[in-house]
Amino acid sequence: MRLVVALGGNAIAPAGTGGSAPEQTATISAAAGPLADLVADGHDLVLTHGNGPQVGNLLVKNELAADIVPAMPLDWCVAQTQATIGFTMTTALEAALAARRVDRPVVPIVSRVLVDADDPAFHHPTKPIGKWQPDGTRRLVPSPEPQELLDRRALEVLMRGGALVVAAGGGGIPMIETPEGLRGVEAVIDKDRCADLLARTVDADRLVILTDVEAVAVAFGTPDQRPLHDVSADELGRLLADGEFADGSMRPKVEAVVRFVDRTGRTAAIGALEQLAEVVAGRSGTRVHP
Amino acid sequence: MRLVVALGGNAIAPAGTGGSAPEQTATISAAAGPLADLVADGHDLVLTHGNGPQVGNLLVKNELAADIVPAMPLDWCVAQTQATIGFTMTTALEAALAARRVDRPVVPIVSRVLVDADDPAFHHPTKPIGKWQPDGTRRLVPSPEPQELLDRRALEVLMRGGALVVAAGGGGIPMIETPEGLRGVEAVIDKDRCADLLARTVDADRLVILTDVEAVAVAFGTPDQRPLHDVSADELGRLLADGEFADGSMRPKVEAVVRFVDRTGRTAAIGALEQLAEVVAGRSGTRVHP
Repeated sequence: MRLVVALGGNAIAPAGTGGSAPEQTATISAAAGPLADLVADGHDLVLTHGNGPQVGNLLVKNELAADIVPAMPLDWCVAQTQATIGFTMTTALEAALAARRVDRPVVPIVSRVLVDADDPAFHHPTKPIGKWQPDGTRRLVPSPEPQELLDRRALEVLMRGGALVVAAGGGGIPMIETPEGLRGVEAVIDKDRCADLLARTVDADRLVILTDVEAVAVAFGTPDQRPLHDVSADELGRLLADGEFADGSMRPKVEAVVRFVDRTGRTAAIGALEQLAEVVAGRSGTRVHP
Repeated sequence: MRLVVALGGNAIAPAGTGGSAPEQTATISAAAGPLADLVADGHDLVLTHGNGPQVGNLLVKNELAADIVPAMPLDWCVAQTQATIGFTMTTALEAALAARRVDRPVVPIVSRVLVDADDPAFHHPTKPIGKWQPDGTRRLVPSPEPQELLDRRALEVLMRGGALVVAAGGGGIPMIETPEGLRGVEAVIDKDRCADLLARTVDADRLVILTDVEAVAVAFGTPDQRPLHDVSADELGRLLADGEFADGSMRPKVEAVVRFVDRTGRTAAIGALEQLAEVVAGRSGTRVHP
């Protein structure tokens, strides 16, 4: 089975840690064993990841140093997080594979994703990023719809060659078409939406989104809170339409898995990063069926 | 002919510019046409690049924000520059190839390079990086010898699949072996030495190092200054031993090409980024023969 597994940026740099390199490395290393087990069991993996806290930290650095060295645009910041998380995932997964006597190269690719320059999101920035301002607000940036993985040929060549690939991290580097060619743009693509696009692009059998909670829940945060273990895409879509899931948190994950299952007729899952093996085996998390 | 072409970090972000994203993109885009011409002429390319000014700017941001968000170690900073320069080179080169009706994917890979934990360089930091201090000094970091491209299998798979690869940027992410596996280390590998290793690893026919001067010169900066156009590796090695070339500037480039020519019996060249086509054609720059 080919699995696309998406690790949340918050799961990699949990709240309460500063998101230092050793902290991120530790979280990623802890995930590497269960990921390597899946490969040892014969599954094919394509990995992707979020970058919310990581890109936020880069923006803080940009702001504080702006008078001395140039601030980098958001597309460059996304690229930076792909590289650091990507090589760290690669190193950890290769070590875990070697411990299981599995010989597969792991390759993090810097991934660009096409967005539409006319996407209405560019007129309605919705994604909060960076640090909280004194007035309790955060900078909002556009979050356009991902249209196409611009580096899918690299993915294809690498997968055909037996590599496990880390791709489309942080939603991918957003690029628009201009008369002069492709150009990076100041936006952040939702990484769950991009994980759905990635999963469909590589013809994945299952999309697995890992986060910092055990399962999708209805009536979240109320006394009636109830986890969903097995649910159809139709039912989950109705709950979504009823406004069950929080913006910027569980909602994009649910949207991504509903979309993947609807368009492919395959299954998806949402669960906790620490429960990866159980989530894939269907003993933990939320499984979404056609 | 397979060429490894190394672009200097200073050539990408020239002194006098701040090294902003638009400035780096403009320099890289200007190089893309001549690079694409080489591909259109039937050459196979592997690209690499320096990152001196770029990594220096990241260190400034790290320092200024260190009380608020974690500073990233040097290996993570090198990875960050590989991603930003890598995707920018990729986008520019793909556009230039498309204009020439050449259909080859370009793939920037995040590249790790093995160094020896016992390398004496770790006891004698020599590489100045980051900003100048008020006392006129700069932070010195170790510059260990590159031993092995850890991502060479990714390179092989991609080249076999017809891709042009951007690899080993900024000398590669330095990694050491530990009982717990590979680990990044605070060092900066010389990018010219790494370009030699890359060229030998991919079995290149020629190593071309592009910088911001026209040619290697003897008696540089004196009234007797004389450019070298054609020179043997033996002769260049003697000039090197005589102390002709400046540390941290022309010296590592000359060392890299002498080493490449000595070990492979093939040719190398050093020239100006803006003269790329002429350098490859042998009409500009310094050509080094066995």
